[in-house]
Amino acid sequence: MNTIYNPNPNEWGNILKRPTSTFDDVEETVKGIFKEVQQKGDQALFKYTSLFDGVTLESLEVTSEEIEQASNRISDELKQAICLAKNNIEKFHNSQKTSRLEVETTEGVLCWQEKRPIQKVGLYIPGGSAPLFSTVLMLAVPAKIAGCKEIILCTPPDKNGTINPAILFTAQLCGVNKIYKIGGIQAIAAMTLGTQSISKVYKIFGPGNQFVTIAKQYASQLGVAIDMPAGPSELLIYADETAIPSFVASDLLSQAEHGKDSQVILVTTSKKMLLEVEKEVENQLQVLPRKEIATIAIQNSKLLFVETDEEALALINEYGPEHFIICAKNEAYFVNNIENAGSIFIGNYTPESAGDYASGTNHTLPTNGYSKSYSGVNLDSFLKAMTFQKISEKGILNIGNAIEQMAEAEGLQAHKNAVTLRLNQLK
Amino acid sequence: MNTIYNPNPNEWGNILKRPTSTFDDVEETVKGIFKEVQQKGDQALFKYTSLFDGVTLESLEVTSEEIEQASNRISDELKQAICLAKNNIEKFHNSQKTSRLEVETTEGVLCWQEKRPIQKVGLYIPGGSAPLFSTVLMLAVPAKIAGCKEIILCTPPDKNGTINPAILFTAQLCGVNKIYKIGGIQAIAAMTLGTQSISKVYKIFGPGNQFVTIAKQYASQLGVAIDMPAGPSELLIYADETAIPSFVASDLLSQAEHGKDSQVILVTTSKKMLLEVEKEVENQLQVLPRKEIATIAIQNSKLLFVETDEEALALINEYGPEHFIICAKNEAYFVNNIENAGSIFIGNYTPESAGDYASGTNHTLPTNGYSKSYSGVNLDSFLKAMTFQKISEKGILNIGNAIEQMAEAEGLQAHKNAVTLRLNQLK
Repeated sequence: MNTIYNPNPNEWGNILKRPTSTFDDVEETVKGIFKEVQQKGDQALFKYTSLFDGVTLESLEVTSEEIEQASNRISDELKQAICLAKNNIEKFHNSQKTSRLEVETTEGVLCWQEKRPIQKVGLYIPGGSAPLFSTVLMLAVPAKIAGCKEIILCTPPDKNGTINPAILFTAQLCGVNKIYKIGGIQAIAAMTLGTQSISKVYKIFGPGNQFVTIAKQYASQLGVAIDMPAGPSELLIYADETAIPSFVASDLLSQAEHGKDSQVILVTTSKKMLLEVEKEVENQLQVLPRKEIATIAIQNSKLLFVETDEEALALINEYGPEHFIICAKNEAYFVNNIENAGSIFIGNYTPESAGDYASGTNHTLPTNGYSKSYSGVNLDSFLKAMTFQKISEKGILNIGNAIEQMAEAEGLQAHKNAVTLRLNQLK
Repeated sequence: MNTIYNPNPNEWGNILKRPTSTFDDVEETVKGIFKEVQQKGDQALFKYTSLFDGVTLESLEVTSEEIEQASNRISDELKQAICLAKNNIEKFHNSQKTSRLEVETTEGVLCWQEKRPIQKVGLYIPGGSAPLFSTVLMLAVPAKIAGCKEIILCTPPDKNGTINPAILFTAQLCGVNKIYKIGGIQAIAAMTLGTQSISKVYKIFGPGNQFVTIAKQYASQLGVAIDMPAGPSELLIYADETAIPSFVASDLLSQAEHGKDSQVILVTTSKKMLLEVEKEVENQLQVLPRKEIATIAIQNSKLLFVETDEEALALINEYGPEHFIICAKNEAYFVNNIENAGSIFIGNYTPESAGDYASGTNHTLPTNGYSKSYSGVNLDSFLKAMTFQKISEKGILNIGNAIEQMAEAEGLQAHKNAVTLRLNQLK
């Protein structure tokens, strides 16, 4: 771990710098696959699934038999855990419902805002070593609450052409309409363009590797919305002398095991805490199954000592972490003044894994400093706000002249005329 | 105008198709200018302002003297109109404030969501023939209500190096912190990368031509958020026999005068209305100052006759118009069932220009079918939702086992361990 005492604010930018990648060659691959999916539809999907996932499929959609069998293949304990998590996620996202907002801005001028569901959404769940059924919960639960009509899910099959049963069980539990065995760039292309089997959606959600990320970015240029730009996962912990070093170390490691490029930062005003956490990380690291991955992430991690809470806060706001854990007696100061962070975890008994799985908050969060401008996924991610206005004769008499003045000054005579005609009618 | 009776639903896609453009050559220009702004800062801004706007500037920031003079150069009537509009926009966007949402999802597990302002935002206001001070209102008013700390505005200077006084007056009135004389790609590059004079922002808002649009898209790849993808403005009117043909025609024309590529569509269940509107459009068109532009847009416009309200609604939802005017006795049917539209105008006395200027709703709206997945600009566009969780000892005892189960099943042992350590401590 890299320990830095009293970093100079001029150096924060460099110290907190995220790894950047250029993707020019990936972009060409993405465009090529999109083109082929557009031209050949399902046929291209079968081809790339064979190429990248090593399995030749005869159909893409998961059958109801497969879903039923999946349910029998997972333990009752895991089912109960998933249901507990679902329940908490539902409660939290249900609370985000908003009602119609109505204002009479001027007498006779009634304006209102209503949120209506995005009709067709596509959820992408990566395959690979970790079957992320928790991400199914985080995306499908709010989609269902929002009232999205078509919720489809794409996830790559394994070499036997099957999907992890926990993913199928969770998707079914959350009301996903259709599940397809398709991953990578080809899945994003299918949801963007539509094929014989897979109908195109209006918005695509979900994490993925570099290929999926670039594919989503390209999709967004083709008229499909995406949840947010994705990057390697991040955790920043602020701990003072009241934190428990073994807990802090376990949180840093839970982030580090995500990937070699995970970002792990400790900021502290206690030198003793810094040294103890460093030692604890070394100890706990030895027994982890994903030790190899975590070790590399930890090597790139930072332990930063600063003198004051104020300095710590400024540094954290400059970074804008995806996950931010606060273990400090002065926690209210950080809670009240944090400007840029995705999700905030407060106190010694609030590990990041709680938010990853079961507290109820969403774990799809802005990385790479995007917390400065993006929200994490929430109920509104599946809705769009529409505005309405209804103006009475009285209303247009009240604001008509202002509109005429402004349209005239902007040189838009037809805009003015649309009002003048109506005012003349009322004379 | 192109009149189509009873279009076959299979043909809707083609009939409602928007013009698409490919921008490969513009992209190279954009990347080149961004690179130069990154390397040379202000010097590059001066160079391109000289090249594109035909004026050699000595400084970019508008001075307080210039702002003061501007205020003296616009009429009291226009000032009053702007203030009336501002007042309505403030009322409507103030109503969109949300308070902290707090839920105890399980005993001891407290989760909440709070929205906090995006600290630094940049507003882009195009120059050209129409000085869009109304867009200043639409962006700066909600930015101020949201509590954004730095609100900067970029707009291109004219050949004398000055900015339209109505833009300066409105920006000052709405609390914009700094105004810069810079437009086009170079303005977006400056707000994305920062220069000696202009500090970089976290999110860029505002309309623009094709160059600005591509520049914003590129900015979004470099880590800056943007309000939404932009395209030519659109209006769809549904009118039955109760509509007033001259009003309908005036609304179609107010859209058509925006640009040659404006999209104008009338859907009706009344053949009589269709013919009358067509005649009215011809008449009103003759006297418009922007007749040349409007004529071209009107040539590409569509008059669609369908038999039933149900068919009309389905077609409109398929299109997803930016602006949607409803003039029909059955208006509630359309209001209740419209799924995809940016802003909706109801009744004979609610012209689109009301929403463009003064009703209180925002006129920065999703075009090009993006109403299927995007909201128009609203208060939330200037905020991001952050989530918080605080778990007590009781709380982690309640959900800890579920987290362990799920982390184990996802193969993330360090995630599990962060909980196990805490549960052991409580044994």
